[in-house]
Amino acid sequence: MASQPRPRIRDVAEVAGVSATTVSHVLNGKGRVDAATRARVTAAAERLGYRPNSNAKGLRSGRADTIGLLLPVGADLEQAHHVLAVEFYLTLAMNTVEAAFEHDQALLQLPPLRGLDDLRRFSVDGGIVVDPLPLDTRVAMFNELGVPVVTIGRDILRTQDPWWVAADSAGSTGMVLDHLAEAGARRIAMLSVDIGWSWFADAQQTYREWAGRRGIEPILVLARPDKLESSAVAAAAEVLDHRPDAVYVPPQWLASGLLRVARERGVDVPGDLLVSVGVDSHLARTSEPPLTAVDLDPASTARQAVDLLIHRIEGGEPAGPRLIPTTLHSRASSLRTPGAAHRP
Amino acid sequence: MASQPRPRIRDVAEVAGVSATTVSHVLNGKGRVDAATRARVTAAAERLGYRPNSNAKGLRSGRADTIGLLLPVGADLEQAHHVLAVEFYLTLAMNTVEAAFEHDQALLQLPPLRGLDDLRRFSVDGGIVVDPLPLDTRVAMFNELGVPVVTIGRDILRTQDPWWVAADSAGSTGMVLDHLAEAGARRIAMLSVDIGWSWFADAQQTYREWAGRRGIEPILVLARPDKLESSAVAAAAEVLDHRPDAVYVPPQWLASGLLRVARERGVDVPGDLLVSVGVDSHLARTSEPPLTAVDLDPASTARQAVDLLIHRIEGGEPAGPRLIPTTLHSRASSLRTPGAAHRP
Repeated sequence: MASQPRPRIRDVAEVAGVSATTVSHVLNGKGRVDAATRARVTAAAERLGYRPNSNAKGLRSGRADTIGLLLPVGADLEQAHHVLAVEFYLTLAMNTVEAAFEHDQALLQLPPLRGLDDLRRFSVDGGIVVDPLPLDTRVAMFNELGVPVVTIGRDILRTQDPWWVAADSAGSTGMVLDHLAEAGARRIAMLSVDIGWSWFADAQQTYREWAGRRGIEPILVLARPDKLESSAVAAAAEVLDHRPDAVYVPPQWLASGLLRVARERGVDVPGDLLVSVGVDSHLARTSEPPLTAVDLDPASTARQAVDLLIHRIEGGEPAGPRLIPTTLHSRASSLRTPGAAHRP
Repeated sequence: MASQPRPRIRDVAEVAGVSATTVSHVLNGKGRVDAATRARVTAAAERLGYRPNSNAKGLRSGRADTIGLLLPVGADLEQAHHVLAVEFYLTLAMNTVEAAFEHDQALLQLPPLRGLDDLRRFSVDGGIVVDPLPLDTRVAMFNELGVPVVTIGRDILRTQDPWWVAADSAGSTGMVLDHLAEAGARRIAMLSVDIGWSWFADAQQTYREWAGRRGIEPILVLARPDKLESSAVAAAAEVLDHRPDAVYVPPQWLASGLLRVARERGVDVPGDLLVSVGVDSHLARTSEPPLTAVDLDPASTARQAVDLLIHRIEGGEPAGPRLIPTTLHSRASSLRTPGAAHRP
């Protein structure tokens, strides 16, 4: 750049030796920062001539200082097969807003894009596309217009694209399967969904490999992604027909259907059947029994995505995909009670 | 205005005699519009010289063509007492995005505002504040900066403010109480939360008045809005100590705790206790038993709020508060089975 770029909140943070969040707190008078740090931040801000930006007046930088977020949900949430992951998406969205704010960026929530003209209507420096489908058309639109884009979740067919952040699905799946096996399960099935998001695709592949290494025939049932209730129940019935002693359910919305069908058939969870679900939620925590679940850390995912996008907007080299580590919360649904009835 | 305002999508819609959505579909080539309508829209757009705007380049209009949305949730969703209303908030947010889009407005998702400087960082023509607290400070910030604002939910202490849209809480409460009474309930309690949002405040007042008209002593238990799980369980236990035969639970997050405590005490729902909840959700629909719930119509609420805000931005007179009608979905939790055990 010919002209000096104007200082950003991160520059102040670096000079003051604190986090961007701390700078934000000090400059906005939030008041939980000790006096010494506060003085250091103020001095750094003054020295650099830092000024908070206004999102639509990026005149000095020639930028809109605005990034766009594209969730995979539209206005008609009730019809969406991901309805039960709402807690995940809302946490992701709110953390994206806060992370953008700490980077002096405003966050535009974009509507479902029906064509390039839709995207052209928004002045964004870059976009975050959540849960890309294979060869996702939304990503293609950003690329077509030359607007930097990163995805949360990997586009499984764009194998050369390094610009993504995703929870570690393969690692999570291995962790869950090992956990179920250690709890005594011998016939572990997977109940998932027929949709090409990397969270599901990687879980399926890992499951097949895991079963293959043990010489076990995989029991994999994929629900149709439409007709929420009926396909959940149909898929749950189909997987239980295989008489598994454990089921890993990567998509959260299928778990309640599985519990219901199991109850109707007199299959006790966890006595007869261990269950683990792929996306943690309040529902998983308060279900009867509480469900073992993978915590995808949507907060870190959002923050890493904003960080990666800004790196890309600023012309950085690909910093490689970023895999977000997950945590398995072990709850009653996968804890075999000593002395409980086992299937033969 | 001295200069001719540039035509907006609504102007095209009016001239073509179709909805803004149809105009948007035609101009973006979505393709589910018949040829005659398509031709009419295209002709209208050409005649008016309509051009889609770019959110951050409101040079012609002197406006940012951007509105801000402030949800009552921050990044740390798990700690929030409204965690179970996530489906409502996400539906509200996505419908706000789409409604804004149809009005040629981009939607900025605003972070929690800690002070005026936070708000100054965003160039928005107006803001929508969701679920204002009494004398809400976020609303005060917009007023202080002279930025038009509307609220979703009423600020119960700003009684002179006509700029709000809200689901009809009083009407919904009356509808639920009448429904429970018609199902045979004689000791109807309310389990709610101690927070000053109009949805809850109006429900409580309506309940007291309803009970007063019948000469019934109200049984009203308010949970603390913090410590999600423990306060839900404590409040549920307290309300059941009163041995009601029905409970109306305006805040969605208290319903699952009530069901759990009832189960532990051997109180059968609906045999011994009818239950109705105030905010419909997938959880309510798939609960065991499925819960009678009020559908707040977040889609209409969002659209009315965007409409009202744009009216205010354009200098319109107060068009009065807008009450959104609700629908009661009657499910198993409030249907007294013939012959089932009744409490004395």
